[in-house]
Parts: sequence; C-alpha cells; structure tokens
Amino acid sequence: MTSRTRISYSLREITDRLGGKVDGDAAVTVRQVATLERATPDTIAFLANERYLPQLKSTRAGAVIVGASVRAATPIPRIVCANPYAYFAQVSALFNPALAAQPGVHASAVVDSSARVAGDAEVGPCAVVERAAVVGAGSVIGAGCFIGDGAVIGSGTRLYPNVTIYRECVIGNRVILHSGVVIGADGFGIAMNEGRWIKVPQIGRVVVGDDVEIGANTTVDRGALDDTVIEDGVKLDNQIQVAHNVRIGAHTAIAACAGIAGSATVGRYCRIGGASGIAGHLKIADNVEISTFTLITKSIGSAGTYTGAYPFERNSEWRRNAVQLKHLDELAQRVRAIEKKPAQPKRRKR
Amino acid sequence: MTSRTRISYSLREITDRLGGKVDGDAAVTVRQVATLERATPDTIAFLANERYLPQLKSTRAGAVIVGASVRAATPIPRIVCANPYAYFAQVSALFNPALAAQPGVHASAVVDSSARVAGDAEVGPCAVVERAAVVGAGSVIGAGCFIGDGAVIGSGTRLYPNVTIYRECVIGNRVILHSGVVIGADGFGIAMNEGRWIKVPQIGRVVVGDDVEIGANTTVDRGALDDTVIEDGVKLDNQIQVAHNVRIGAHTAIAACAGIAGSATVGRYCRIGGASGIAGHLKIADNVEISTFTLITKSIGSAGTYTGAYPFERNSEWRRNAVQLKHLDELAQRVRAIEKKPAQPKRRKR
Amino acid sequence: MTSRTRISYSLREITDRLGGKVDGDAAVTVRQVATLERATPDTIAFLANERYLPQLKSTRAGAVIVGASVRAATPIPRIVCANPYAYFAQVSALFNPALAAQPGVHASAVVDSSARVAGDAEVGPCAVVERAAVVGAGSVIGAGCFIGDGAVIGSGTRLYPNVTIYRECVIGNRVILHSGVVIGADGFGIAMNEGRWIKVPQIGRVVVGDDVEIGANTTVDRGALDDTVIEDGVKLDNQIQVAHNVRIGAHTAIAACAGIAGSATVGRYCRIGGASGIAGHLKIADNVEISTFTLITKSIGSAGTYTGAYPFERNSEWRRNAVQLKHLDELAQRVRAIEKKPAQPKRRKR
Repeated sequence: MTSRTRISYSLREITDRLGGKVDGDAAVTVRQVATLERATPDTIAFLANERYLPQLKSTRAGAVIVGASVRAATPIPRIVCANPYAYFAQVSALFNPALAAQPGVHASAVVDSSARVAGDAEVGPCAVVERAAVVGAGSVIGAGCFIGDGAVIGSGTRLYPNVTIYRECVIGNRVILHSGVVIGADGFGIAMNEGRWIKVPQIGRVVVGDDVEIGANTTVDRGALDDTVIEDGVKLDNQIQVAHNVRIGAHTAIAACAGIAGSATVGRYCRIGGASGIAGHLKIADNVEISTFTLITKSIGSAGTYTGAYPFERNSEWRRNAVQLKHLDELAQRVRAIEKKPAQPKRRKR
Repeated sequence: MTSRTRISYSLREITDRLGGKVDGDAAVTVRQVATLERATPDTIAFLANERYLPQLKSTRAGAVIVGASVRAATPIPRIVCANPYAYFAQVSALFNPALAAQPGVHASAVVDSSARVAGDAEVGPCAVVERAAVVGAGSVIGAGCFIGDGAVIGSGTRLYPNVTIYRECVIGNRVILHSGVVIGADGFGIAMNEGRWIKVPQIGRVVVGDDVEIGANTTVDRGALDDTVIEDGVKLDNQIQVAHNVRIGAHTAIAACAGIAGSATVGRYCRIGGASGIAGHLKIADNVEISTFTLITKSIGSAGTYTGAYPFERNSEWRRNAVQLKHLDELAQRVRAIEKKPAQPKRRKR
Repeated sequence: MTSRTRISYSLREITDRLGGKVDGDAAVTVRQVATLERATPDTIAFLANERYLPQLKSTRAGAVIVGASVRAATPIPRIVCANPYAYFAQVSALFNPALAAQPGVHASAVVDSSARVAGDAEVGPCAVVERAAVVGAGSVIGAGCFIGDGAVIGSGTRLYPNVTIYRECVIGNRVILHSGVVIGADGFGIAMNEGRWIKVPQIGRVVVGDDVEIGANTTVDRGALDDTVIEDGVKLDNQIQVAHNVRIGAHTAIAACAGIAGSATVGRYCRIGGASGIAGHLKIADNVEISTFTLITKSIGSAGTYTGAYPFERNSEWRRNAVQLKHLDELAQRVRAIEKKPAQPKRRKR
C-alpha cells in the first residue's frame, strides 16, 4: 500500500463530515484505510459482506466501518452506516485525495499556438496539443498524451500518460482516462466493391459526458456519420471496445474486455460483465445486467440478468458432454419420437 | 458530425465521377453525407437496407443514394446505383478526403541520421525514427510514434499518434495504422526447461501489405523464425491479437477483439466476427465466415459460415438449462437405453 | 527472418556449451537457427514434434536438433538431446543475444532530478522518468515510456517503447515489458451511492517479480488497498487484463486476451489459454491448465485441465442444435418422465 498522506482523522471528525454514527470511542484517530486482513491500529477497515465476519473478529484495525446488522459483532470502535462500502470509499477519498493539477505546460510539450489551455491546467512532458484544441480549468494532460485538432477536454479532467484523443472529440468534466486509452479512432466502416474494401470515412465524433472513467487501453471509436456517445457517470474498465455510433446510457458500468458493436444502444444503470459482447444495432433497456462471457444477440426490452456462458468442467468430462451438442437437435427429435410411440399396442390420438 | 469541408457537388457532378443515374433534379447540390435520420437539405443520405425504408419516407435529405428496387419509393432527387453502400462510401470520400501529409519533420521528433525519410513525408511531434528506418513518400508518422531500427514504412501510409513499430518490420503502401497499434512485439515463444521458462528469441518480422487498415490497440507479433504476414487489403478492427507466424490472406476483414493464435493461416476474403478465436496452426480456407464469439479448433477446408456461441437467456433459465450440459452425455445414453428397450413384450431385432 | 548476427558455431562448440551429443560431423558450422521448412545449409533447425518428420526428411538444414527417438531418422549432422525445443531456444539465444543497453539518457528524455538512473542504464528519446523513480543497472527504458513517481525498475530489465508504469509500482530484474503495456492503472473500484458511482481510491501497487515477460498492450491494475502481485518467472502474452489484487503464482504462463478478475489467486506453473477468464475472488491451484475460451466460475482445488468452450459447427447446424439449449432442462425432464412411465399398460400413481 502506498502512503502518500500523513493526514489523520478521529472517528468523530469523519462522521461530522460523512454522517453515520460512532459506536465506541469516537476520539480514536486513524491515518489510512486498509483491508480487515492487513489493517494496523492506525487504520480503519470496513465490512461490506458478512462472509468476511471471521476477518472482523481477528482484525488489528483501530476502527471499522460496518452496517447496523453487525454493529454488535466487534468491540472495536466503529462507524455504523447504511452502505459501508460507499462510506468506505468516501473515507478513503479523505485520506487519499485525487492529485491536483500542477499548473503549467512542460517545456517539452508541444502545444499549438491556436490551442486554448486553461492557466491552471497541467500539460505533461512530451504531450502534444494540436490546433484549436481546448483544455479546461484544472485538467491534467499526462506525459505523452495527444490531443488532436479541435478536441475539447473539460474541467477537472485527468488524462494519464499516453492517452490519445483524435481530432474534434469532446471529453466532459471530471473525467478520468487511463493510459493507453484511444478516443475517436475510425470506426470499422468498409464497403466491398468489386473485390476490394473501400473505406467509409468516419466523420462523426466521440462525445464523453461528465464524471466518466475509462480504463487502460480501452478504445472508443468515432461515429461514422453521427457521434458515438458515452453519457454522464459511465464507468468503463480496461480493454473495452466501443464501436462507432454506440450510445452508452448514464451510470452504466462495464467490466474489462467487453465489446459493444456498432450502433448498439445501452441503457442507463446497466451492469455489463467482463468479456461480454453486444451485437450491432441492438437496444438494451435500462437496469439490465449482462453476465461475464455472454454474447447478446437480440435487443433486451426489460430489466433483469441475462447469461450465456458455457459452464466449465474437467476436460475429460467436457469432451464427453460437448460432443453431444452437435447432436442435440437429433436427440430432441428422438425423445419426441419416443413420446409419440404408443405405450400400448393401440394408437393414442393427440 | 464534423464539418471539415465546404465543398459542394451537384448530383450530376457526382454521377459524372462515380457512375450511377440520377432520378429527379440532377442540379441539386449537396455539401456533406448524412444518415437518413439526421440529414438536412444540403446533405445526401443513402439506403442500403430496405428495413430503413420508413426513414427514407421521413428524411429531410436533399438527395439520396438508392438501389434500383427502391427508386420509386421516394420523390427526393436520387442517385440510382448497383451498390448503394459502396457508392455512398465513395461520395463520402469526395466530401471528406483523407488528410494529406504536411511535409516536414517536427522539431521535437528524433530521427536518426541513418534513417531515410521522404522529403514530402510528415513526422509529428515527439515521434522517434531509429537507425536505417525508412519512411516513404507522402507518409505520416503521427506524434509519439516509434519506428524501430531498419523498419520500412511505405508510401502514402498514415500512422496515427502513439503507434509502435518494432525493428525491421515492413509496412506497405496506403496503409492506415490507428493509435496504440503495436507491430512486431515478440511472439509468445517459451520453452519449459527444468522448472523455468526459457525465452525463444523471436527473429522473424511482421510484413504488412498494401492498403491494409489496422484498428486502435491491435497487436501483431513478429515471427519466431519466419515472418508474420498480413496480405494486401486486409482490414483489422480494434484490439485484435495476431500471434507470431500467422498469415492473413488478402482482403480478409476481422472485427474487434478477435484473436488468431500462432502459425494459423487465414484465407482470402474471409470475414471473421468480433471476439472470435482461431487456434494455433490451423488453416482456414478462402471465403470463410466465422461468427462472433466463436472459437475455431479445427482447420476449415471449405467456404461457409461457422458458429459456436452459447445463446443467452434470462439468468434463471440459463441456470436450469446450462446445468444439464454437465449431464448431456449421460442424457444421450439414457435416451439410447430407452430406444433399445422393447416397446412390446416381444423382442425386436435391429 | 532478420539477420542481426554474423556469429558462427560448430556443433561441437554448441554441445560444449549446452550439452547434448553430436551424431555425424561435429565440425559443421551454422550461423543461425531456422525452421525445417525454410532452413538453408548454414542454419540449424529442430524437430520437437514427430508430426513434422516429413519436413525433417526434406529439409536443407546444415544440422538439426532432435530427441533420441528420432536420431536415426536423418543423415544430417545432428545434436541429440532430451528436450529439443528448450535446446533450440538456447541455441537461438547464442545466435540472437538480447540487445544490451546503450548507456545514457537521451537528450529529449525528461528525467526528474530526484530520480536515480543507473549509469549503465539507457533512457530512450522522449521517455519520462518522474520524481524519486529508480532505474536499475543495465535496464532500458524505451522511447516514449513513462515511469511514474517513486516507481522502481530493477536491473537488466527492458521496457520497449511506449510502456506506462504508474507511480510507486515495482518491476523486478530481467523483466521484459512490451510496447503498450500499462502497469498500475487504477483497478475498477466503484461503489453505488444514491444513484451515482463513487470512485474507490486505488492505493495498492503492482509488484512484478524477476524474469517476468509481459506482452504488448497487456494491462495490470494496481491494488485497491493491498498490492497486485505477479510472481517470478510469470509469462504473460499480449492484451491480457489482470485486475486489482490478483496474485499470479511463479512460472505461470497465460496466453493472449485472457482476463483475470479482481482478487483472484492463480497458482504456480499454471497454463492459462487464450481469451479465457477467471472470475473474481477465486483460487486456482498450482499446475492447473485452463483451455482457450473457458470461463472459470468456481475455485479449482486440484491440478488438471479444465474446459468450457462451445464447439463450433456450420452455422446451419449450430442453429438447429443451439436452439435446443433453451429447452435442455425440459428435455431432461421429459426423458425422466419416459423412464418413469411403466413399460406395461397398468397405471402408476405419482
């Protein structure tokens, strides 16, 4: 664990800021957050899932964050609250505030004279900001990033090193883009003509809303004609592929390695599992949960959890079972034939 | 939609260049392409799929591109042609020509004195061109790109920012490589020896033909001994992995997130779906179509469409059904046993 | 094939260094390794798999490396050894030694005055080394790489161009990181609170052991609280995603495009297939082999091979068969009903 901070807070100071109620000594001070397992007396841990109760019993934490149902399960000074995980996230942010921009353009950065970079923004070493691009107040453009012609970066936004933003794309406020992210590369638009693929110019943009976070090496392609849109509060993990003209609804979270094909529309507050896929041109309703490794091939009109992953087994058993998949229709027909066969010599009518 | 251009064309000027026939007023001029849905009177839209006919009825486009079968479906001035999507791609290229190189090496770029960069090529800020590398006429090396020792970039080729080309790899003419592409990293060659993996030096190259486009963050590994080869006209989407010694035949198109394992050979004019996989050392014939999420585990000797994705369901139903997969062989045996059981007291001979 | 070297060795010189026994003329000299198929008389090839015996018969190689069982299968001068593939790897390393660092910091690199870079280390053009970071003896930081505050790079380690190491991460000795690798980006830690996702600060590090190799565009996220750990000798292929707080045991090899979800623990000497997945919080024992395209959803307590991929078919057949998956539970129930049905006329009560 890193130790960027030497701040300390008493439990009373924490609940004064964040709410919740202290059970036990509210004057206890802590300096950092920790897991129950590795906590030391100067740290505060949390319990969000009762299956970790044994770790609560043995933790060395100076304080813990718990829900009301387990408040009696430990004598350690504790903050009791409705949503321990979210509360913990807020406590952690107290001890680990986001790094602020260090205003200024590094001497090795290359910023076009027509670009507008806010005075309190930071542009790191070897970053490149092209013609007419805009970088908003307090934003950070990490080392080696590229901001193309006319692209707009909002305020309070952080691009970690080696992010690429193609021309004319728009990134909102308080957005975080991790290293290797590519926003606005051409969508996969090709037309077959007399034995050759012709490129379809991709003239839409990518528009990313506020409070979005995008993980390392994720790619979001620009639209073919209209824009690709990532709405406010969307959270994308690493190595996700978002194709041209996709729209992802506000506050949807997508786990790593998922792929959303062209022109698909994903609703708000969806949760999409890792390495899942959504085929092109589909519409996914709000509040849909898609399981890991699941390919969605039809639009989904109502909330719920949808799954389509093959269960794993020992290879020897999988072999025996999987081979039957190629005869499944035949097997079903044979069962139907058996059912139709008269159990008795005389015919039965249906 | 971006608006880089202020060019306008009449329908007559378009058909003079590209063929096709005008129905309606050929003097109508348009300034950009658009979707039927968002078109304005100064734009031209297209209909390539009859399921969008309702949008044709309501579009505000000044002109449309259609096939002969629907020429009577609208009173809007229209270009009638055999392949509306390919025609549209060509019209779009009229309004949105590829950006030309801006000749010269940026002051912040680092070009080795033994490298040969064509006089009309462009080398962007903070790009690096190493010993004896070659950059051909009119090519663009974007900001932050790296061109390794002895690598060769053809003519009219564009590397978007932050592309990496390892030493001695060869990129053809009129190639487009999007940001984050890595060409020529070592293939995954390891040999187990007394409890330790030994690295197998990867001494082949990557050779990319002409008119290839490779999407953002796609990786193509160098060969172990011989070369990895991407033939002319291949189109690779984003986040594809091409392992060492793969050969991809001319004009094959591969959608995002697919993976081709070592020494596999893919034919010409194949279409490979997103997040699909091809196992090592296989041979895939020409004109094969592989569906999204499908793993190919045996060579494919003839054209056709091949599929192997698990159909998704509501999780509750999937659970009930998927559990049976682990008993599928047993189920098949039980059906066989029932079939063998005499339906009547007397024995039946097979 | 590239030809960086003009070294030559006789078979005797090779076996003097690496062991094994020569059959035939030990004075024969070779200058490079090659495949049986493309070998020339000045190269040495190898046969590790008997299915390539026909190629042994027709090869033009000057010498070959073979196992004892096939030593009589060719008249070509040959080195006989226990593990031809590992032996070949070592011979190839003789002819193709890893490139050494070219000591010095390039004029265009940006190295903070508080960073410690070994005198014989190499820092390439436009690379950035931040505050208090350490680069060990003989290591190479490629062009455009970023080494964050307080990060530590061991000795004899090579970062190819455009690698990103976030602050405070630790990379061991003799490690190879290929282009586009991102080490230490924030894990996907979010907590839902009143309709908004709150970010959970990710304050752990990534710690990478010695002799690890990580392929192009692979991402390893920093821990949420404790560290993410890649143990010694681990080999990761391209485009792999390793989530926060994962631990990968020593000498495990993972093929391209696999994803390991948060807090999963993978044992030692595992072999994990391409595009496979391991769900969060699982424990995988040592020596487990996971097949390509397989999702592991439960902990695995014992060595063996585990599989869960859908077998592919021609699309027409897949359609007929796959549709039955949605009725599999019903089919199983129908078979059970048939089995329970009396073979004879009399009724049975339920």
